[in-house]
Amino acid sequence: MYIRGQKLYEGKANTLYEVVDHPFYLEMESTDRISAGNGIRRDIIEGKGITNSAISSVLFKLFRSKGIPTHFISDGTNEYSIIVKKANMIKLEVIGRFIAAGSFCERYGFESGTVFKDLIYELCYKNDAMGDPFVSETCAAYGFEVAPMRDLQLIAQYTKSVGILARDFFKEFNLTLVDFKVEFGYDLNGKLMLADEFSLDTCRLWDENGKSFDKDVFRKSTGNVSETYKKVLERIQPNK
Amino acid sequence: MYIRGQKLYEGKANTLYEVVDHPFYLEMESTDRISAGNGIRRDIIEGKGITNSAISSVLFKLFRSKGIPTHFISDGTNEYSIIVKKANMIKLEVIGRFIAAGSFCERYGFESGTVFKDLIYELCYKNDAMGDPFVSETCAAYGFEVAPMRDLQLIAQYTKSVGILARDFFKEFNLTLVDFKVEFGYDLNGKLMLADEFSLDTCRLWDENGKSFDKDVFRKSTGNVSETYKKVLERIQPNK
Repeated sequence: MYIRGQKLYEGKANTLYEVVDHPFYLEMESTDRISAGNGIRRDIIEGKGITNSAISSVLFKLFRSKGIPTHFISDGTNEYSIIVKKANMIKLEVIGRFIAAGSFCERYGFESGTVFKDLIYELCYKNDAMGDPFVSETCAAYGFEVAPMRDLQLIAQYTKSVGILARDFFKEFNLTLVDFKVEFGYDLNGKLMLADEFSLDTCRLWDENGKSFDKDVFRKSTGNVSETYKKVLERIQPNK
Repeated sequence: MYIRGQKLYEGKANTLYEVVDHPFYLEMESTDRISAGNGIRRDIIEGKGITNSAISSVLFKLFRSKGIPTHFISDGTNEYSIIVKKANMIKLEVIGRFIAAGSFCERYGFESGTVFKDLIYELCYKNDAMGDPFVSETCAAYGFEVAPMRDLQLIAQYTKSVGILARDFFKEFNLTLVDFKVEFGYDLNGKLMLADEFSLDTCRLWDENGKSFDKDVFRKSTGNVSETYKKVLERIQPNK
């Protein structure tokens, strides 16, 4: 078993801790903090962290079992957390879209719900002061130099695989994966891997009737966030 | 020799005519019209069309000689024009950047003149109402469906080749190619080809001292556009 060490970093939704006697590992805690509009709206949603951590854990185990390199090591010291490899994060938000929704529709005039022929893949340079601007792959590689081009090409492949795996996983429970955001990093041996989380804070999931089971419930104030998140967990882990 | 037929289309800077007895060809006339800020500022620059047509002709002959498929057939019925293949144009502005300049600097905070490790490649969806928004390659292929992905991958390759050929060409005359915009289309047999123009209206060229020899002279009102454009032609065609 792992023992939680001292707090290292507090992000918008996650908190990172050292792991005693494991200098290459971290404990990543999904907190109940939630924010929208680049942190302008903030709240605490009791139990959200447990749900998100459980969902992320299920998905990272799936990705790992299918050969995607990830930071995931094991479940954590409590229900809110998982043990992960330390990472040098790549300053990119990597977005995959199967279906048009949210800001994408405003930007390009697509009707919400438009199904794309294949996964639409977008990169944003992580920079709060600039508002995480949309960048081309070559701009990320040769302008901001966030990673070598060969790694960005791997990231595109991994993102597509992760998207298809997650989409097919949720489909079994009559949930449609609309879009998602992932992040990548290098482990301390320099190996590229999927990091961060895959949770209801970082994807859009619709049920049979197009009802949102994700952070849009918070963004649009259309329901009880905690209850909505829990319903997803009940669908995908019916015996728990 | 070709004989000009009736006018087909009047664009912001170019006018297209039929070519008598050549139903697969068009005559593309570079006019003296100039505009900036999405057409908000407009003017007539006497002689600009002749210079741009001559420069575009020189470059398209170069691209063709190096194996890039293009719409270029021959010089036209007058100094303002060239004969080209009719094209079904792909609704993309394809941008290549060797050096940071213009709106790219405002968007991302790069200092003007920053030299990139390799060509930065960007796509904008051609749509006046939307203001030609920046799109990812997959958004162009699977969202707007402007062309199949395999053709977008060819476009990326052709654009890089065209950029390197043009950069090396101008370098011989002590001019630095900073960035450029190209467009592609399909000929009536469905073959992908470089179309439109490669002129001082569609690229940035700097001399040894960083002085602009391109449309920035008009955008920024820093000099005589006609004289500036002519100086480029004098450098690259010293015997004419």
